[in-house]
Amino acid sequence: MAAPGPVHEALAALPLVDHHCHGAVTADLSAAEFESLLTEGAAWPGVSPFDSPAGVAVRRHCAPLLDLPRHAPPADYVARRAELGWQEVNRRFLTASGAGVFCVDTGYAPHPLTSPAELAAASGAAACEVVRLERVAESVAARGVEAGGYAAAFRAAAEEAVRRPGVVAVKSVAAYRTGFALDPERPAAAEVARAAGRWLARGGRLDDPVLVRHLLWTAVELGLPLQLHTGFGDADVRLHRADPALLTDWLHRTAGTVPVLLLHCWPYHRQAAYLAAVFEQVYLDVGLALHHTGPARCRAVLEEALEITPFRKLLYSSDAYGVAEFHHLGALCFRQGLADLLQERVDTDELSLADALRIADWTGRDNARRLYGPPVSEPARPSGGRPTRKV
Amino acid sequence: MAAPGPVHEALAALPLVDHHCHGAVTADLSAAEFESLLTEGAAWPGVSPFDSPAGVAVRRHCAPLLDLPRHAPPADYVARRAELGWQEVNRRFLTASGAGVFCVDTGYAPHPLTSPAELAAASGAAACEVVRLERVAESVAARGVEAGGYAAAFRAAAEEAVRRPGVVAVKSVAAYRTGFALDPERPAAAEVARAAGRWLARGGRLDDPVLVRHLLWTAVELGLPLQLHTGFGDADVRLHRADPALLTDWLHRTAGTVPVLLLHCWPYHRQAAYLAAVFEQVYLDVGLALHHTGPARCRAVLEEALEITPFRKLLYSSDAYGVAEFHHLGALCFRQGLADLLQERVDTDELSLADALRIADWTGRDNARRLYGPPVSEPARPSGGRPTRKV
Amino acid sequence: MAAPGPVHEALAALPLVDHHCHGAVTADLSAAEFESLLTEGAAWPGVSPFDSPAGVAVRRHCAPLLDLPRHAPPADYVARRAELGWQEVNRRFLTASGAGVFCVDTGYAPHPLTSPAELAAASGAAACEVVRLERVAESVAARGVEAGGYAAAFRAAAEEAVRRPGVVAVKSVAAYRTGFALDPERPAAAEVARAAGRWLARGGRLDDPVLVRHLLWTAVELGLPLQLHTGFGDADVRLHRADPALLTDWLHRTAGTVPVLLLHCWPYHRQAAYLAAVFEQVYLDVGLALHHTGPARCRAVLEEALEITPFRKLLYSSDAYGVAEFHHLGALCFRQGLADLLQERVDTDELSLADALRIADWTGRDNARRLYGPPVSEPARPSGGRPTRKV
Repeated sequence: MAAPGPVHEALAALPLVDHHCHGAVTADLSAAEFESLLTEGAAWPGVSPFDSPAGVAVRRHCAPLLDLPRHAPPADYVARRAELGWQEVNRRFLTASGAGVFCVDTGYAPHPLTSPAELAAASGAAACEVVRLERVAESVAARGVEAGGYAAAFRAAAEEAVRRPGVVAVKSVAAYRTGFALDPERPAAAEVARAAGRWLARGGRLDDPVLVRHLLWTAVELGLPLQLHTGFGDADVRLHRADPALLTDWLHRTAGTVPVLLLHCWPYHRQAAYLAAVFEQVYLDVGLALHHTGPARCRAVLEEALEITPFRKLLYSSDAYGVAEFHHLGALCFRQGLADLLQERVDTDELSLADALRIADWTGRDNARRLYGPPVSEPARPSGGRPTRKV
Repeated sequence: MAAPGPVHEALAALPLVDHHCHGAVTADLSAAEFESLLTEGAAWPGVSPFDSPAGVAVRRHCAPLLDLPRHAPPADYVARRAELGWQEVNRRFLTASGAGVFCVDTGYAPHPLTSPAELAAASGAAACEVVRLERVAESVAARGVEAGGYAAAFRAAAEEAVRRPGVVAVKSVAAYRTGFALDPERPAAAEVARAAGRWLARGGRLDDPVLVRHLLWTAVELGLPLQLHTGFGDADVRLHRADPALLTDWLHRTAGTVPVLLLHCWPYHRQAAYLAAVFEQVYLDVGLALHHTGPARCRAVLEEALEITPFRKLLYSSDAYGVAEFHHLGALCFRQGLADLLQERVDTDELSLADALRIADWTGRDNARRLYGPPVSEPARPSGGRPTRKV
Repeated sequence: MAAPGPVHEALAALPLVDHHCHGAVTADLSAAEFESLLTEGAAWPGVSPFDSPAGVAVRRHCAPLLDLPRHAPPADYVARRAELGWQEVNRRFLTASGAGVFCVDTGYAPHPLTSPAELAAASGAAACEVVRLERVAESVAARGVEAGGYAAAFRAAAEEAVRRPGVVAVKSVAAYRTGFALDPERPAAAEVARAAGRWLARGGRLDDPVLVRHLLWTAVELGLPLQLHTGFGDADVRLHRADPALLTDWLHRTAGTVPVLLLHCWPYHRQAAYLAAVFEQVYLDVGLALHHTGPARCRAVLEEALEITPFRKLLYSSDAYGVAEFHHLGALCFRQGLADLLQERVDTDELSLADALRIADWTGRDNARRLYGPPVSEPARPSGGRPTRKV
């Protein structure tokens, strides 16, 4: 591990843009509820989610923010969390994250969650919204539509959704629904109508391959950056079909249109780095993996992700969901892992300090600001809990 | 590398459960025979298997146990091995492994090998048996059966095999026979009978996709933990079809039934870790890779495997076959690699010492005892050569 | 990072065999032209190719050879390069590479490039040629041939091409044209004729799956070592179809014929290592990844590649194209990365110094000499700029 140096200081003070996260739960959680939010799996008998890299990291790095000793026992942690109440817990972790901007995916909410504005208000940060297109499509179906009118209705609903103030990007979870081994061509209108007819008759979530392709092509027409879940997630994903390399043919066909942000990527972050190195429109982050692997491994994951990635192509995200611990841990892991790797390169004279500081600013904030534009680039309101630099 | 500390001491003294290994050869080996057992390939002209990471590790870590200097030349090594004789060689390495229990796959024996009882007797450890189901099926075919009776005969033979004393698990080498890109559904009885008819007429090893699926579903009905070869092996495997992520649909369908132990996994250990993180029934080890990558890299492989794996989901195995050097080297690599990574986390205060010691005990012994039950959990007989803690 | 020791000294003095590279541009380059050669992507607005691991490495390690300070600004670098002129730039970097032999793929030349003899002359090294078979096939088509005569004409043209003095190997870019998920069987003559008919009528590059298979089988008949591009490349590749594990069935069918050299391999270098460990005829390198990941990560990539690779199976290549900076950087990264990993193993007594020095000589030079024979094994002419050992 590199001795702390100026890169650590710079990253510690940088108001990050967390370009993809979710809300924090707005309710006090039982021990079981809290534990189930610590894992992409579930809480199984005899296997506490605390007994994982993420659980160890929470006890080490989050307990002190709840006034507990480092490595506090899980029972103490959960009890103290309940004692403080969810508002105070959220405030402490969201403030500690030092994020200047949160870009919030509002399309997944099995729990009661903070809105983007509430997430921001809890920490003095700014908030933006990311529209999940599968949810838009499913709302269109729920409201009732004819098969022949589905494409136009979905397009109209998506356009309306992205016109809401503060929306900076759209997102697709095609990785979960069909995976990326899709026909890369834009489906014909008649094909979409037939597929819509089948789906509307059957109901359920949007997982028809033709309609998922249609959704991705509609995303391109909306003109906003497109975030794509790739790689690691819960048991609903088929990991090998979420390898972003499978998108290559589609990326060729959509070159010159919208930026495509590959989210998470682990364990295919090298594949994602390849795409970012050869396609102008491709960017990546290693969110989710940061807090799940924890401080002991996030540097290693970042080093692999950065092996060939152009430095203007990596972004920061936490992909935190539900527990604000993860908004904090993601930021902590990113700052520490990136600072360790950059500082060591400075210390061994592989990189100049000036370059290291530029790379830190770019990946932690400026690449996102460049991509998402005004709502992300506007100065965050000054935080009560933490001095922030102008962002 | 972490300076040795209390985690190293604890792991050095821990009687490991080697939850998947094979017997050691019960014959003196010529130089060529010994060399061919050092590699998953073969001994090729001009390329000595000693000139590999595993060969270097044998000369470094095994030579001293044969009273030779570290890094002894291959010729000296082979000569001294012959001089001592196979019984003494086996005794030395099996004892040095410090294993409390060996779980032995008895279904692969192209060489004359120790039985589980003989393996255990050589070192004062306990032994259990793992039944390889392909071998059971092939024995049923060899004894003669009608196509329509195959399913019942195989089921009966498997049930009989697992009733033998000391059997704790079944194993499949489906990875070698068809790979995992199989239809995840249980095959219908008529489909099995037709496939059996084709196979019985044709003969040869069991590699029909319907019968391999049927074998996996029969394994589920037997109720014992199921070990699955995944990833790295000899040239008979198609590596990309041995990626355990391909099992996801089958794991969804068999959730709530038997534990599934993904063996070896390298280079898909991150994919295996993902499955262990999101499926209650999934466990993994990085056996085989430990001694083939050697002490210089086993920590790195363990670190990748543990990035997101819950700490109750990793087990130790050597997957040693033939030469008892590998029963020892696997244990040495596991102890050293895991101790280095845990001790460093303790030293940097990412992990408490108490947690590190629990994780060492779990992964080295207790996860296996919890899964396999009594035969594995019974105290090993005290070893003459080495003080053991009660297991 | 290991403290420099005798392994570093030995590797610094070793005249490497760069067993796969391309020529250097024989023209002065504008800033934009130079930048576009720094990346496998392109120069995009707002994203300078200098802002990448390779760009940082060029500024750090190449600038001093142009009499500039380390980490010189891109504009200074490009200006100084133009000032010196391409002949002097090529001479400095090619000499600095310390390569004793360059094996040059002459089949890809969108820019005006040095011939093998010119490349060698610029640095006092020897040069050999690698014949790209797709180019031979496309020349046959361009000259005009009947479908039924294609196979014989291609075979004759390939035989003629490899009879040229200095030719040591053939190469295929099947990875780019179809990927490796091909039928592994040799196509029948009639099938080849039909496919040739379609291709000759259609024109364009050779990407018909039958003809690509035929090309690979023709390569086997030529009797020379066969280099195969695998993994990382430009946007024209489909990365997941360039995984060398997909070649397994074909490698079984061609065992006992020609050596197969898997080039580059990243991010599938572990898969390539598996193939090299179990197939006698398979070798690998991690060219291209060396200079694209740069000195900060090439050790890590080499360590992964060497986890299970027999030490007689790894070769050095730069895969440099166009800018002689990469002939130098590849060599620098290989020397430094390999020396760091071997020296650390010596320092921790995992490897004897004598073994480390043998491994350095093998991988840097002797494995290539053994494979390619006389033209590669002949002593290089003494270099004016650099003392070389007899190779």
